[in-house]
Amino acid sequence: MVSIGNMLILEKNTPQQPEGLKQRFVSALLYCTGEMLQLHTHMQDQLFPLQLAEGCLRGISRVILLNNPLSGALILAALLLESPWQALLGMLGLLASTFTAIILGLDCEEVSSGIHGFNGMLVALLMGVFSSAGDWYWWLLMPVCLGGAATTFLSSSLAPILNHWDLPVSVFPFNTVIVLYLACTGVSNPYFPSHPSHPPGAPDSTNHTQLHVPQLLQGVVLGVGQIFACETVGPSLLILTAVFLFSPILAVYALLGSGISTMAGLSMSVQHSFLYSGLSGFNGALGCMGVGVFYILSWRTHLLSIASALLSAYTDIALSNLLGVLGLPASSWAATLTGTLMLLLTGKKLKEYRIPTGKVTTPEQDLHSHKQWSAANTSTTDV
Amino acid sequence: MVSIGNMLILEKNTPQQPEGLKQRFVSALLYCTGEMLQLHTHMQDQLFPLQLAEGCLRGISRVILLNNPLSGALILAALLLESPWQALLGMLGLLASTFTAIILGLDCEEVSSGIHGFNGMLVALLMGVFSSAGDWYWWLLMPVCLGGAATTFLSSSLAPILNHWDLPVSVFPFNTVIVLYLACTGVSNPYFPSHPSHPPGAPDSTNHTQLHVPQLLQGVVLGVGQIFACETVGPSLLILTAVFLFSPILAVYALLGSGISTMAGLSMSVQHSFLYSGLSGFNGALGCMGVGVFYILSWRTHLLSIASALLSAYTDIALSNLLGVLGLPASSWAATLTGTLMLLLTGKKLKEYRIPTGKVTTPEQDLHSHKQWSAANTSTTDV
Amino acid sequence: MVSIGNMLILEKNTPQQPEGLKQRFVSALLYCTGEMLQLHTHMQDQLFPLQLAEGCLRGISRVILLNNPLSGALILAALLLESPWQALLGMLGLLASTFTAIILGLDCEEVSSGIHGFNGMLVALLMGVFSSAGDWYWWLLMPVCLGGAATTFLSSSLAPILNHWDLPVSVFPFNTVIVLYLACTGVSNPYFPSHPSHPPGAPDSTNHTQLHVPQLLQGVVLGVGQIFACETVGPSLLILTAVFLFSPILAVYALLGSGISTMAGLSMSVQHSFLYSGLSGFNGALGCMGVGVFYILSWRTHLLSIASALLSAYTDIALSNLLGVLGLPASSWAATLTGTLMLLLTGKKLKEYRIPTGKVTTPEQDLHSHKQWSAANTSTTDV
Repeated sequence: MVSIGNMLILEKNTPQQPEGLKQRFVSALLYCTGEMLQLHTHMQDQLFPLQLAEGCLRGISRVILLNNPLSGALILAALLLESPWQALLGMLGLLASTFTAIILGLDCEEVSSGIHGFNGMLVALLMGVFSSAGDWYWWLLMPVCLGGAATTFLSSSLAPILNHWDLPVSVFPFNTVIVLYLACTGVSNPYFPSHPSHPPGAPDSTNHTQLHVPQLLQGVVLGVGQIFACETVGPSLLILTAVFLFSPILAVYALLGSGISTMAGLSMSVQHSFLYSGLSGFNGALGCMGVGVFYILSWRTHLLSIASALLSAYTDIALSNLLGVLGLPASSWAATLTGTLMLLLTGKKLKEYRIPTGKVTTPEQDLHSHKQWSAANTSTTDV
Repeated sequence: MVSIGNMLILEKNTPQQPEGLKQRFVSALLYCTGEMLQLHTHMQDQLFPLQLAEGCLRGISRVILLNNPLSGALILAALLLESPWQALLGMLGLLASTFTAIILGLDCEEVSSGIHGFNGMLVALLMGVFSSAGDWYWWLLMPVCLGGAATTFLSSSLAPILNHWDLPVSVFPFNTVIVLYLACTGVSNPYFPSHPSHPPGAPDSTNHTQLHVPQLLQGVVLGVGQIFACETVGPSLLILTAVFLFSPILAVYALLGSGISTMAGLSMSVQHSFLYSGLSGFNGALGCMGVGVFYILSWRTHLLSIASALLSAYTDIALSNLLGVLGLPASSWAATLTGTLMLLLTGKKLKEYRIPTGKVTTPEQDLHSHKQWSAANTSTTDV
Repeated sequence: MVSIGNMLILEKNTPQQPEGLKQRFVSALLYCTGEMLQLHTHMQDQLFPLQLAEGCLRGISRVILLNNPLSGALILAALLLESPWQALLGMLGLLASTFTAIILGLDCEEVSSGIHGFNGMLVALLMGVFSSAGDWYWWLLMPVCLGGAATTFLSSSLAPILNHWDLPVSVFPFNTVIVLYLACTGVSNPYFPSHPSHPPGAPDSTNHTQLHVPQLLQGVVLGVGQIFACETVGPSLLILTAVFLFSPILAVYALLGSGISTMAGLSMSVQHSFLYSGLSGFNGALGCMGVGVFYILSWRTHLLSIASALLSAYTDIALSNLLGVLGLPASSWAATLTGTLMLLLTGKKLKEYRIPTGKVTTPEQDLHSHKQWSAANTSTTDV
């Protein structure tokens, strides 16, 4: 899979003379994969609504560490398939946080690349999932807009602190806002009632029954979908396709992380419903992908991504148990904290594989640049 | 109100020839408003006890973001009116933390401007409020002294970390120490028993009764008093006068923030007792004033102060619900955290309105300096 | 005691001509006390297993702020005396975290001086203590290895953040990992069941009985042992001897801190079992020793160490009460946080007594260097 990615990059860099139908298909495919920078530069001269649309789609894909508008469109389709009401909420949260960024006068280039949208979208999706008032409860649009705006304030404030150690803001704002929202409303709020969260470690009646392996494997795939709070197979597969479109390596990491995380859940004997629904898997998937995006692939960083998935999974169980006492979900705190710690590691042999936060592209592109750089370095040393 | 402030500043800067009684009254009024720097420079040559008295009065006023010894005296009068025992505790806490600062060898200029006193005073006041042993329980003086000293340690330790991002220490030490004290003693402690805190979101019997609008409006005014744990109208109005003496703009912000915060409480249907007693309002008031003090007034920063009040209010409800489970109050954590985040915002158009932490004066003075600076800049650009 | 230490240092620095038996004994004693740097330089040329053994023994001693392989051996003996199973777990955790550090490619000099081992060891010891599955439960080796590895990840990640303010990582990784492990497993876990923690403030039946003074004094000594989770007198005395071997001053501070901390526990009327078992004392001992290690001894820093012990003790009671609600122990969070804050104090007169994190040796050596430096400074000023 790595070699395919490499081939794609190589072909992308060489001038293309479209000849046959197959050739055209390949060049169209190349255009759609990776970061789609050609589209981004093309969009600079377009009208504001078109630029906004591209920024929003990139923002959707950024939730899962991608940066590709087509992946964003695929994920939007997955959300619509899962629940149109959820998709509406998500888009509203995305727009609310993006417009807040524009009003606050934040960096235009950042806004147009979708950096200020994904936290608002996640908050909106989770507000919808935890609301016990049912679909199409229009009052929910108010907290969605306010919550989306709040994430922009938070990400703009956290940036100078985290940038000091070259760390990304990632989904800290989302996690903070959703916990505060659920703590604020509570289960019995008359206007915005919400479902309580149960700790995964609580003993349940089904715990002593036989484990159902096909359901467990399905849970691994659902773990990728749970990043967007999707609980069905179809949308989860669409989201996995969106990841594959951006980078095949990341898609492998997503499944690997979800699998490791599910195993960790098994070793702590969490409730079977957590394993089957993918709730045990999504933090591991995110933790694993985080290392995949921010480190150049090598055997050492591969081990690191496995360690990151394990740590994310166990930390998630611990935090879910703790916050579950207060009726709150741990959302993606575990993966966010673990991923951030992984980026701070100081070992010499890891440092040189770390990609600076501002220069992150696809893992394939990074690997390619690194190989070229190594080759150039070796040749100069030889001479 | 802004123009009155401006006029005061203008007159202050021009040499004054006292002629009639009215003239003298105005010049006396001018002397007492704002930061009273003339008094401060005059005090440099005085005896240590007088300097200490001025520092303590400034320290009292710093709790509510002011820096004026006369405001401090007014607030002290308000506390005496509310409860002489409380006022005694507050003064003792103030002295304990100021003397700890002197023993630790902290910066003299900081000590004499009251920076190391207000956290100790707040801790002492809240210890008194939460004590269930009644007034004139002399054993309480021990934790008051220890708690006051602890805030100085904390503020001296937090300063190098927060200064790195040009943030003030504000009331982080107070919030930390009071939570630790209440967690340490608990409800059933034989020596230092305390009242438990109830979460504001808990359903109560009065929740379904009609809302009483005059009481609600009174709650908005009490919100300003609750910053000093005052629950009656007279002292709250005195405190509001103290704010007005320092800066009329800040007094408006205090009431605005308290009002917004009370509305936020209504939208989350908190218990009516929280709305009527001003407990819902004081975090919003502090959050709103924080933006007013650290940003030059403009329409953009005005919107920001409203956003800050809203965020403080909702965060306070969330934190009160969470800490209420453990029987602890959220004190002013919400306003402190929100205010700190507001000072970190990175938008270009906000950055130029931000006043560096060391150069904070009254909003009126800042506005005046900014206008002069803008005018000078425009004229040089024209030439 | 200080003068003995000074004498030892003086003799160490002068060339020694061994003459009689007494002379040889003294020189052997000198060789074994302090940091044993001669052994460390001697070890540089030895085989890797021997270097590793020295690093591990130094790692054991670093738990209690020492840096002496012989102290480490004494502590290991104390652990074996207390429980061979515990000692085995501790050594495994130490090895797991040290090998993780080697794999991650961390600084060799740091690894060989034991910096990356002590957190893993503490995690392993506490996992053993809290496990309710009894001794020789071999499945426990898995979390011990994983937990040990996790501490190395954490300490490598926290280092760049804490180093920014010249702070040591100390036992933050241990505290984080043990809380997450216990939250992850919980009381009713089928594979890794654990004892629940009880808050010290809870009223118990024995609270109203007479205080037993000899048991209280024994609790002060046990407080030093509780740093390694030792609950019997013999091993605690061995650990105290290990401290004395490194530095007599630190041994005094350990007992002083434990005593102050026990008094603080009395003033809050914690359960008698906490006082008698040393659980009330160990945070104060650590907090007191922390100031002793990082500040040059003077009357001002002596006051500071007492303040640090008091703050650690009260913070520990508060955190134990809070975390006890969730069934979790506060381990050494209080001493770690308080000690870290103490190192951040900004007072001029304290700053010049602060020893930079990288240059910490024994308090006796620091005092000696400071006196020499002061004498040199005075003489140059005189001329």
